[in-house]
Amino acid sequence: MAESTNLRLRLPLICIILEVILIILFGVLVEYNDDTDAKKWNKNNSTDPATNEFYYRYPSFQDVHVMIFVGFGFLMTFLQRYGFSSMGFNFLIAAFSLQWATLMQGFFHGMHHGKIHVGVTSMINADFCTGAVLISFGAVLGKTSPVQLLVMAILEVTLFAVNEYILLSILGANDAGGSMTIHTFGAYFGLMVTRILHRPNLDKSKHKNSSVYHSDLFAMIGTIFLWMFWPSFNSAITQYGDPQHRTAANTYYSLAACTLATFGFSSLVNPEGKLDMVHIQNAALAGGVAVGTAGEMMLTPFGSMIVGFLAGTISVLGYKYLTPFMESKLKIQDTCGIHNLHGMPGILGAIVGAVTAALASRDVYGNGLDKVFLEAADNSQWSAQTKGGFQAISLAVTLGIALIGGLITGFLLKLPIYGTPPDTQCFEDAVYWEVPGEEEDHHELNEVSTQNEVEKLNS
Amino acid sequence: MAESTNLRLRLPLICIILEVILIILFGVLVEYNDDTDAKKWNKNNSTDPATNEFYYRYPSFQDVHVMIFVGFGFLMTFLQRYGFSSMGFNFLIAAFSLQWATLMQGFFHGMHHGKIHVGVTSMINADFCTGAVLISFGAVLGKTSPVQLLVMAILEVTLFAVNEYILLSILGANDAGGSMTIHTFGAYFGLMVTRILHRPNLDKSKHKNSSVYHSDLFAMIGTIFLWMFWPSFNSAITQYGDPQHRTAANTYYSLAACTLATFGFSSLVNPEGKLDMVHIQNAALAGGVAVGTAGEMMLTPFGSMIVGFLAGTISVLGYKYLTPFMESKLKIQDTCGIHNLHGMPGILGAIVGAVTAALASRDVYGNGLDKVFLEAADNSQWSAQTKGGFQAISLAVTLGIALIGGLITGFLLKLPIYGTPPDTQCFEDAVYWEVPGEEEDHHELNEVSTQNEVEKLNS
Amino acid sequence: MAESTNLRLRLPLICIILEVILIILFGVLVEYNDDTDAKKWNKNNSTDPATNEFYYRYPSFQDVHVMIFVGFGFLMTFLQRYGFSSMGFNFLIAAFSLQWATLMQGFFHGMHHGKIHVGVTSMINADFCTGAVLISFGAVLGKTSPVQLLVMAILEVTLFAVNEYILLSILGANDAGGSMTIHTFGAYFGLMVTRILHRPNLDKSKHKNSSVYHSDLFAMIGTIFLWMFWPSFNSAITQYGDPQHRTAANTYYSLAACTLATFGFSSLVNPEGKLDMVHIQNAALAGGVAVGTAGEMMLTPFGSMIVGFLAGTISVLGYKYLTPFMESKLKIQDTCGIHNLHGMPGILGAIVGAVTAALASRDVYGNGLDKVFLEAADNSQWSAQTKGGFQAISLAVTLGIALIGGLITGFLLKLPIYGTPPDTQCFEDAVYWEVPGEEEDHHELNEVSTQNEVEKLNS
Repeated sequence: MAESTNLRLRLPLICIILEVILIILFGVLVEYNDDTDAKKWNKNNSTDPATNEFYYRYPSFQDVHVMIFVGFGFLMTFLQRYGFSSMGFNFLIAAFSLQWATLMQGFFHGMHHGKIHVGVTSMINADFCTGAVLISFGAVLGKTSPVQLLVMAILEVTLFAVNEYILLSILGANDAGGSMTIHTFGAYFGLMVTRILHRPNLDKSKHKNSSVYHSDLFAMIGTIFLWMFWPSFNSAITQYGDPQHRTAANTYYSLAACTLATFGFSSLVNPEGKLDMVHIQNAALAGGVAVGTAGEMMLTPFGSMIVGFLAGTISVLGYKYLTPFMESKLKIQDTCGIHNLHGMPGILGAIVGAVTAALASRDVYGNGLDKVFLEAADNSQWSAQTKGGFQAISLAVTLGIALIGGLITGFLLKLPIYGTPPDTQCFEDAVYWEVPGEEEDHHELNEVSTQNEVEKLNS
Repeated sequence: MAESTNLRLRLPLICIILEVILIILFGVLVEYNDDTDAKKWNKNNSTDPATNEFYYRYPSFQDVHVMIFVGFGFLMTFLQRYGFSSMGFNFLIAAFSLQWATLMQGFFHGMHHGKIHVGVTSMINADFCTGAVLISFGAVLGKTSPVQLLVMAILEVTLFAVNEYILLSILGANDAGGSMTIHTFGAYFGLMVTRILHRPNLDKSKHKNSSVYHSDLFAMIGTIFLWMFWPSFNSAITQYGDPQHRTAANTYYSLAACTLATFGFSSLVNPEGKLDMVHIQNAALAGGVAVGTAGEMMLTPFGSMIVGFLAGTISVLGYKYLTPFMESKLKIQDTCGIHNLHGMPGILGAIVGAVTAALASRDVYGNGLDKVFLEAADNSQWSAQTKGGFQAISLAVTLGIALIGGLITGFLLKLPIYGTPPDTQCFEDAVYWEVPGEEEDHHELNEVSTQNEVEKLNS
Repeated sequence: MAESTNLRLRLPLICIILEVILIILFGVLVEYNDDTDAKKWNKNNSTDPATNEFYYRYPSFQDVHVMIFVGFGFLMTFLQRYGFSSMGFNFLIAAFSLQWATLMQGFFHGMHHGKIHVGVTSMINADFCTGAVLISFGAVLGKTSPVQLLVMAILEVTLFAVNEYILLSILGANDAGGSMTIHTFGAYFGLMVTRILHRPNLDKSKHKNSSVYHSDLFAMIGTIFLWMFWPSFNSAITQYGDPQHRTAANTYYSLAACTLATFGFSSLVNPEGKLDMVHIQNAALAGGVAVGTAGEMMLTPFGSMIVGFLAGTISVLGYKYLTPFMESKLKIQDTCGIHNLHGMPGILGAIVGAVTAALASRDVYGNGLDKVFLEAADNSQWSAQTKGGFQAISLAVTLGIALIGGLITGFLLKLPIYGTPPDTQCFEDAVYWEVPGEEEDHHELNEVSTQNEVEKLNS
């Protein structure tokens, strides 16, 4: 017998208990950082307010925030009857994850006398971690209950923080835009989870696992906001000045080149030369993913465009050829095709980052070398080649933690306690939502015209 | 006989006359402020352009602007046949109100040698005042003509400016994010207006007073933009530096906690545990309202999350239990449920603000005390308790002016001269708009399939 | 026989070849500017990062970016069956144009030792040039293939750069918000192209050349984002400090006044006094266009509102009376009515700019005169009247280049090699896109109810 999908106890309980725990932990552990606290910031009355990190980071934070809530949320509304869940569950797990991430990242990134310090930079980092969870959500979209998603978020945020700590603090890796920490991690974690949750009879919901005309337009809201604000995403936590500026420019050029590759290959792989909305909605974004590591380096617009072009190309080809193969042979049901948008482009981004780092030199960067590669400043022995090696190791570590973490998480999510939807009710809002009637006026109109036909026939 | 809803003379006349009056008053009264005027700003050629208030406030202004026009506009598109009016009338009355507010607020906030000074801060304040009018619009949504709405805006903006003047200039209250001046005022003003305009036979339009699947997704555009940019709203006019930074962070945490409470309680109050889009669209925002006064203070993330959690909870419970009661017993027909999103959370925010102010001390704020409570700087007798008392008085004043103002305005709006829609035509765009056919291709398809059925039957 | 619309070879070829050429040219010609390059920016280690142009321009850049991709893209989704193409082709030609514009504008605006320098200002300028192409796209919307549009973009971007060079570098014109360079140029170029591409039998697609209820709401997303961010558009590349501040304020007031005029006249020209969505979506924006030149000058809020009011008025009247006349008598089929939104308001903006410049004086501007009119700083002979004259000449030059350029481009686009849609298939996504079924659930519902009717009849 199928498990009940009535969440009346489970969803309220997990939401309220989690929030109460979060509030208590925030009460014990969290305090304002030096730029946010009234006393600390004004210790010296002559401090110029313009030097507050708020003014360097807040516009980027808001753009990132839009990507997380509008970008990811609407991108997933492409399914015809899953718009409420796509937007709603995206909203729920993002609101939870950003709080949990604040604690986990704060814990690993260094406590200050036993306290976690928060401010605009920690807010951006929390949003970034949330992004990884939402990427994984894309793989299991339509096949999971909100309770299941919250459990996934608890585990994934924790492992994200561990991986990020190993990469940034132990291996000293550069990954400002998160090609590795966010995209590669989120993608392979999610792919492993959906592999473990494989549903052999998912074709019972097949007719709902597709878009309709309007749902594709809603999804384009998500796509375009992600595309436009990706320069802010990649540059949000780079150093002040030239690195922020350069990262934004590199991402801008990479995405533009990626878009032309996407349109070109989308048409090429279709027998009638017709464009496919799935490609445009997703592959055109791969250029942002692929310069997530190297964007702050002296990649040059030229290099960025090559990377973007490659990313768009592999992404379209992935949607066309790899996704069906993964579904039929590897039993990986990847609803949004995150492997094509975040997985492969993330790995590409990690490799590009390793190579670009290995080619860095004081000749090219001047004094700027110490701003991009912070450890070079104090270390006369610093070598670009070694740095490149550590970048490559970081990719391997990320893949390992993501896959093992996804494996464990997947098995935990298989427990029959979350109210997961039956195979016949996947990709369907009505399982968890009060869904209004569809265009009542419209029905009436149709009924009237049917009536007319029938009357004509009778007469 | 029902009044004609043909606005061909009335709407053009009021729009054009109002705009001509505005232009004349701007010509006589308005000039650029010191940061906007070419001569005044460049009096001293060595002024650093980075100190222009533009760079501190403009990104926040744009976020607020998005909330007013996209946020409020789309939030109200949830009705199935009222999307044009929701977006369109929101647009119209906002465009009018921001001009009228510039004059009214300028008049009360201190003329400079008989002139009103404008710049980015006055633009934010004008948008804020507009927000209050749009909140009231939510209560009467679907039951008013655009002429009626413009008349309401004239009166409400004026009273808003009076109330704001009493609170900020006479009582010296803090209310940077407008829990009192914007949300409480706008909500109780609007509720009183809709009470006076009570329609006993509104159930004649009942079938249109609901959403359809796509209209709920459009409304989510509004919700999410409001949610994301609320940190900018609350911090837009706080002092530079730590207060702006702290307000944004507090709002961010409050909203996140509010969202989990909203999902939890929305599921809890439904017999099948299903989520209700009305709650998600609205109650998840209450956390922003509720830290509108205390956000700039040392509320801490911990305190913000408690406030947000409470706000989400009372808001969901309000939608579920209070709104039906208010409609049936108090004859308050509150289309958007503004009492739950702005009314109760606004009062909560005012109380939280009064308490937080009463607990302020130089121990906690250091020199920052003088930046949050400006009057403390010059006054060695300044007492937090007294300040808290004035905050509480401010709430009472706001409620009084809002209710009396709404009463008078409501009666003025009852005059049978505005082309208000009949009870059978509420919540219907076609009254005031040229509405295109619904999905022509679609009809054809249906006709074809009906035809097929009929033919099959005949053969 | 009609030309094939299968683009399988043509679209991939042009996308990939163009992108490869762009990448090669970027490799040879483009390098980071002084604020973006690691070595150059950090030459002097003590440079304050806050002085990097990134912090003055990037928030405006992002707003402009939203206007180009969301604003223009969604504005054109009003057609019932052309949403994919409106969003998709807008995306494609914008992504191409911004790269090509970087090269063309860089070439004309001064090479640095044979290199084009890029950074946030060049990114804004590239987006601006892209805007002109998208304006022209509005005239030919629904009647062109993506290959045709890319060819149009190649030519239009090139001529845009030529015209911009003549105006800004030779004639020394002011046009920060592009009333002339962007709006007038884009409009008259596009109108001439659509004149040359005149389709006598376009009424074969007439039933698709209209909106439906939901498509008008999608279009409002475009309208509102354009409206809100127009202050950023006009101020994005003005001088730091007061000019940026003043331009934003002027645009804000102009748009507000324009909106009231739009609502007033839209109601006035309708026999039943009903509002027309086409006017609201478009004419309300004319106020932004019309202060594109004078916005940075001491136009005052008063002057801005007069200009905005006039712009809204002529734009509504243009939609009502001029567009039908142009279509029937002048054979100009202007799908989006760009003549009313960009053409006439652009010319108005140019005239207002010329008059405002001619009235400039050191009395009014103080030292700020040299920031608005850069050439006045070095030239004691500088005369406002002469300046005004050069502004007027700039308008004439723009019109000339736009019309001749559009003529040549139109003839090139007539070649039967681009896979242009036949007259019966205009305004139809299915020609170039894989289009999903329309609301499957819905059909099923209808089929069921038809079935019921039929069964009832049988029994």
